[in-house]
Amino acid sequence: MERRNREISLDEVEIDGPALVHVETGGGGYASFNSAGHSNDREEEDFTFSIAFIFSKYGDFHTIDWQRDLARDRLRHKLIVGKRADFPLGVAQSAWDAGAGWICVLMVGLAAGATAGVIDIGARWMSDLKDGICADRFWLDREHCCWSSNDTVYKDSDCSAWTAWPEMLNYYGKNPFFYVLEFLFYVVWAVLMATLAVVLVKVFAPYACGSGIPEIKCILSGFVIRGYLGKWTFIIKSVGLILASASGLSLGKEGPMVHLACCIGNIFSYLFPKYGMNEAKKREILSASAAAGVSVAFGAPIGGVLFSLEEASYYFPLKTMWRSFFCALVAGIILRIVNPFGSDQTSLFHVDYMMKWTFVELIPFAGLGLFGGILGSLFIFGNIRWSRYRKTSKTLGGNPIYEVIVVTFLTASISYFNPYMRKSASSMIKQSAFWQLIVALIFKFIFTIFTFGIKVPCGLFVPSIAMGAIAGRLVGMSMESVFRSVQMQSGHSTYWACQIGKDCVMPGLYAMVGAAAVLGGVTRMTVSLVVIMFELTGSLEFIVPTMVATMFSKWIGDAICKTGIYDAHIELNGYPFLDNKEEYPYSTIAVQVMRPCPTASVTSSSTPEGHPERNELSVIVQDGMTVGDIEQLLRETNYNGFPVVVSTNSMYLVGFVTRRDLQLALHAARKTQPYVVTDSVAYFTNQVPDPAAGGPAPLRLRKIIDLAPMTVTDQTPMETVIDMFRKLGLRQVLVTKNGKVLGIITKKDILQFMRNAQSGFTNPNFK
Amino acid sequence: MERRNREISLDEVEIDGPALVHVETGGGGYASFNSAGHSNDREEEDFTFSIAFIFSKYGDFHTIDWQRDLARDRLRHKLIVGKRADFPLGVAQSAWDAGAGWICVLMVGLAAGATAGVIDIGARWMSDLKDGICADRFWLDREHCCWSSNDTVYKDSDCSAWTAWPEMLNYYGKNPFFYVLEFLFYVVWAVLMATLAVVLVKVFAPYACGSGIPEIKCILSGFVIRGYLGKWTFIIKSVGLILASASGLSLGKEGPMVHLACCIGNIFSYLFPKYGMNEAKKREILSASAAAGVSVAFGAPIGGVLFSLEEASYYFPLKTMWRSFFCALVAGIILRIVNPFGSDQTSLFHVDYMMKWTFVELIPFAGLGLFGGILGSLFIFGNIRWSRYRKTSKTLGGNPIYEVIVVTFLTASISYFNPYMRKSASSMIKQSAFWQLIVALIFKFIFTIFTFGIKVPCGLFVPSIAMGAIAGRLVGMSMESVFRSVQMQSGHSTYWACQIGKDCVMPGLYAMVGAAAVLGGVTRMTVSLVVIMFELTGSLEFIVPTMVATMFSKWIGDAICKTGIYDAHIELNGYPFLDNKEEYPYSTIAVQVMRPCPTASVTSSSTPEGHPERNELSVIVQDGMTVGDIEQLLRETNYNGFPVVVSTNSMYLVGFVTRRDLQLALHAARKTQPYVVTDSVAYFTNQVPDPAAGGPAPLRLRKIIDLAPMTVTDQTPMETVIDMFRKLGLRQVLVTKNGKVLGIITKKDILQFMRNAQSGFTNPNFK
Repeated sequence: MERRNREISLDEVEIDGPALVHVETGGGGYASFNSAGHSNDREEEDFTFSIAFIFSKYGDFHTIDWQRDLARDRLRHKLIVGKRADFPLGVAQSAWDAGAGWICVLMVGLAAGATAGVIDIGARWMSDLKDGICADRFWLDREHCCWSSNDTVYKDSDCSAWTAWPEMLNYYGKNPFFYVLEFLFYVVWAVLMATLAVVLVKVFAPYACGSGIPEIKCILSGFVIRGYLGKWTFIIKSVGLILASASGLSLGKEGPMVHLACCIGNIFSYLFPKYGMNEAKKREILSASAAAGVSVAFGAPIGGVLFSLEEASYYFPLKTMWRSFFCALVAGIILRIVNPFGSDQTSLFHVDYMMKWTFVELIPFAGLGLFGGILGSLFIFGNIRWSRYRKTSKTLGGNPIYEVIVVTFLTASISYFNPYMRKSASSMIKQSAFWQLIVALIFKFIFTIFTFGIKVPCGLFVPSIAMGAIAGRLVGMSMESVFRSVQMQSGHSTYWACQIGKDCVMPGLYAMVGAAAVLGGVTRMTVSLVVIMFELTGSLEFIVPTMVATMFSKWIGDAICKTGIYDAHIELNGYPFLDNKEEYPYSTIAVQVMRPCPTASVTSSSTPEGHPERNELSVIVQDGMTVGDIEQLLRETNYNGFPVVVSTNSMYLVGFVTRRDLQLALHAARKTQPYVVTDSVAYFTNQVPDPAAGGPAPLRLRKIIDLAPMTVTDQTPMETVIDMFRKLGLRQVLVTKNGKVLGIITKKDILQFMRNAQSGFTNPNFK
Repeated sequence: MERRNREISLDEVEIDGPALVHVETGGGGYASFNSAGHSNDREEEDFTFSIAFIFSKYGDFHTIDWQRDLARDRLRHKLIVGKRADFPLGVAQSAWDAGAGWICVLMVGLAAGATAGVIDIGARWMSDLKDGICADRFWLDREHCCWSSNDTVYKDSDCSAWTAWPEMLNYYGKNPFFYVLEFLFYVVWAVLMATLAVVLVKVFAPYACGSGIPEIKCILSGFVIRGYLGKWTFIIKSVGLILASASGLSLGKEGPMVHLACCIGNIFSYLFPKYGMNEAKKREILSASAAAGVSVAFGAPIGGVLFSLEEASYYFPLKTMWRSFFCALVAGIILRIVNPFGSDQTSLFHVDYMMKWTFVELIPFAGLGLFGGILGSLFIFGNIRWSRYRKTSKTLGGNPIYEVIVVTFLTASISYFNPYMRKSASSMIKQSAFWQLIVALIFKFIFTIFTFGIKVPCGLFVPSIAMGAIAGRLVGMSMESVFRSVQMQSGHSTYWACQIGKDCVMPGLYAMVGAAAVLGGVTRMTVSLVVIMFELTGSLEFIVPTMVATMFSKWIGDAICKTGIYDAHIELNGYPFLDNKEEYPYSTIAVQVMRPCPTASVTSSSTPEGHPERNELSVIVQDGMTVGDIEQLLRETNYNGFPVVVSTNSMYLVGFVTRRDLQLALHAARKTQPYVVTDSVAYFTNQVPDPAAGGPAPLRLRKIIDLAPMTVTDQTPMETVIDMFRKLGLRQVLVTKNGKVLGIITKKDILQFMRNAQSGFTNPNFK
């Protein structure tokens, strides 16, 4: 309660929001009010407005204004620093404020590590449940069951304590009917689990499906999706993830783990109003959470930080990097303590044996990279086509449960007969049987295309890694036989390419490199991917092969289709994501993109289509409009904000006012100031005429204008404008010429423009 | 030649520089010229101007305009893409252009690795030269000499093939005179080497002294220092670094290695006009080079990339990150092939033995962190005080050679008697002798304070690491005896803190943690430091201890003094470096910082001191000034540019014109257009009156205006303005109010403002 009160007192100053500079630079903004009458009413009005402002949030599916949020935070910080003199309360508050970020990421790390541990253990147990159950202790999975039973005939993770389902039904003999029963149990369990997962998702938390990474990217870039990181999503996604991965579907836990970690970050950030009440600051916690998610998914803390930096985050100051690292490390340590895999390693596949490679082998590694890029692009193409069909088709889109049942049934039936598809990616790297591997690769590819996007929590990393590992192993085995035959022909075993005595081509290394190549082709990650693979194996030895493969994979992949799977899904879903990485070589200037379009014939064809065309800019005059005029403007347009100008003739820019602030202010005025009528003139200036002079009482609205809107001139190249949007996190920019406002460019206009430019890429001039 | 021609033809379009949009959007800018007369003269004039423009560069100690340079590059890229249709030349050119960046960083990596190898070998050989020489093969250092001699009495790196200097003079017996002679040789050689280094630096390349990292930071942030990365600096710094580190001074090779790698990057960038001719693009290569420098210095490619990202670079798009990684990796591989240390490891200290730690030990690790932060801050304080004295004092500043001789003499004399100071940091981690270690720590600290800054190439990493390693070992040894005595008292050897049977406290690990702590305290690096330490040791096991120490070190260090050693030196030298990391919680608005200062009393005290105060903004009127007026303006002021306005009455902003462009244009006009006289009116508009109407011929200057200057309103908070400068890389911003130009804020004003605000931090409002 104490804290909440403090927040209100802080935000009371923040009500001045956009025009907050008034408060600071001598309080001029407020002082001027006092010269006019109605001071009592004013205070009441101010208070109503402030409360409304505090509890006002960004609308769902809106974009945040980074500059404004960060300014709010700076003001808050300044006030706390100012209180430092009040010993001891002020000092304590200041220390708490300084440490809040660290405490928050510490808690996120702890919770993410614990969650990952629980999910790993749960998924393992349920996955084994398809085959049978531990007779003595039903809560143990097969491996732990056999460990605890002290069985001497423990072999190939089978022991007498572990009871297959047919055995439970007293079918002991290994006759055909036993296998049919086993198969039926396997498939039925798989379908049941997957169905439960999809029903849970559909009923309780529709946002819990999928990998979540495309949406996380959008959220980190400043998009608001209510409930996407809420507690229900967290709970249902955790349970659903256990069920879905236990069902044997071709999906991974890694993407969802990042989503879960971000949910944790979001939930904990509400304990710290500094982060919970400020969307821009909250993104710092979420970036750290994303790093923790990758850290627990792969046991790769540094890779997690780089993933957050390279793939996920948009706003990533160095302070956040250091905290992300801390968060990722804490999560990794907790997972190691929980120790879900029963060994000391937290990573998916830890390869102990020494592997050496020679420079000649860089050629097959590069070849694997090319293959990875092509396979990844094919996958993206296939998956996006199918996802688009799912979105548009009524049959498929309306019946997600049937889709899941069919996919699970097919996956389970076929995987049952191919051991390479039932096994985890980890064992895939060590085993080998040529034709079965090829079959497994083909099925894995097809299944994953149809699986990624069904309405259960499903990640993409592990299926990609599995595909790559299979392909890599195939190449490695071929290389091995080639080298062997070359050696036999040349007659001596220490051939130039093979300085070590024994078998010099290590198919396991090829599997690793292939995994990196395909993962790179699918996600188009670079540095973070190499570092993750390096942390997975724990040796710098393999950086070079991995890097070569990743590089070729990215080159060929980018040549075939420019976007990775996440960006492709962002595009498919039409999220307003302004890519931080791309460079846009356009040759357009601001005046050609802004709205309203100037009537000049040169630019008329560049109009973004699908928008109702208005030929006049909707502006607010600083001292010439009545309350009725403004209300009419609000009714007739749906813009999020309006430029305030000196007069409609001159159009010289004064500031910018948002629709929300206008609505709130008018609403508050109508409610608390009975003398404000439709004919009252709204004044956005400090010079308000004395109401005693006759006419209806004026309405003062100076405090709601943002006197520092971002502007560009009409001739500014669009590259610069896009740069400003990306780097400063703007929502809109005003276009001026010789001091006059000509139009406005919003983030949506930018995205629309970029989409148009990309489709007509050969002629970006729109001519 | 072919390539040069292409560049000219590209830049001919770029002469339109700021207003380049004209060329693209239908060529309107040029078309309008043709309607007026003098077309022949115009072409000639254009050509002269364009040549001048191409060969014009940024002045020495100027700041680059990132937006403009990047726009130039985008235009260049667009033209090449446009040529893609011309098969095969256009395609080849396009491919070459796309691959140029990769080829360039590849070459940089190769060269950096080779250079590092040569320097390592050279320094090792010369360092041993102080003691003696290899009798058979003088070009071998002591270790290789003993290896190659096949000597059986090879012990403690001494063998019969290695001849100490007294032995060369036929003084064999180990009598006192032998040791005196050995001491004399040692000191004389040391002084000779250091003197040679300082003379070389003083005579040939004054920029070759010091670590270079502060200057690299400034250069990467967009500062131009001619010759700082030139070939002479490279050569002299390489030779000087060998000499200086062989002389036994308390300095490291790491900072200079980064400087050398950046020299290589700069030199190679001239092979690729895309980078060599564009300062902003060149920074991409330099960032990658810095990563390669750290990579070869520590054998830590990932750490190098993170160092470049965290500490060095300013503009670091993800594309650069990937290339930096490649560059760092290539450099690391080459160094491994050169194999300067005769073993398979490239790192400074590679610790093979298994080390375990327990959670209780995190307390002494945190304590080491605190110690590191305090020691680092003390070091910064002492070194900066001494450096300031050196700058101001005539005796010291004027005689760098004497200073070096004195410091070297003292260092050599004292180190000769303390084996811990003669040995490398690597062996320090393994050895132990309490009191000698304390003495070594104190001397190391004092020597390093006086050494960092003398006029030879000198880095800071290794001395810091050595100090930290000594301190850490001391703590480790104390902890060991404490734990032992606790165990003996409790009566059993498997105490709670010590699960492993044998000695559980590993002083070597403490030395490592201490090294990280002191290095963190001195440089204030975070993530990159932890990753470097992790790559040095090759095990994820030690990340947590290192991280705890680094964190505490940074906290306590930042509490004592805010800046790291590099930023402190940047401040000391007054470089215009706008820190990318700091957050500035000021509460000032643009109008209070801009020049000229408004006459309002509130802000009059905020005038940056030391500048001549002008009460009027120097502007150019778009169609009302004669050539003479402009020339007078150029003479009377020294501003780098002027806003162009509609009229002095209205002050509505049209654009911005730089001093350099104005001078070039006027010079060209006077030279090639005889009809342009002092009374000619200069027109910055498209509507130029017909000269036939009487009066002197007009001068058209439309093409040199930047029609897209960055503007902010007068009420914009300074945080936002600083953000724009940092993120968009601006040189200046124009301050407007209601469309009128009020003033201008340059990067220098921002730096001045920040310095003022920091000194009066308790009252940042300047009130």
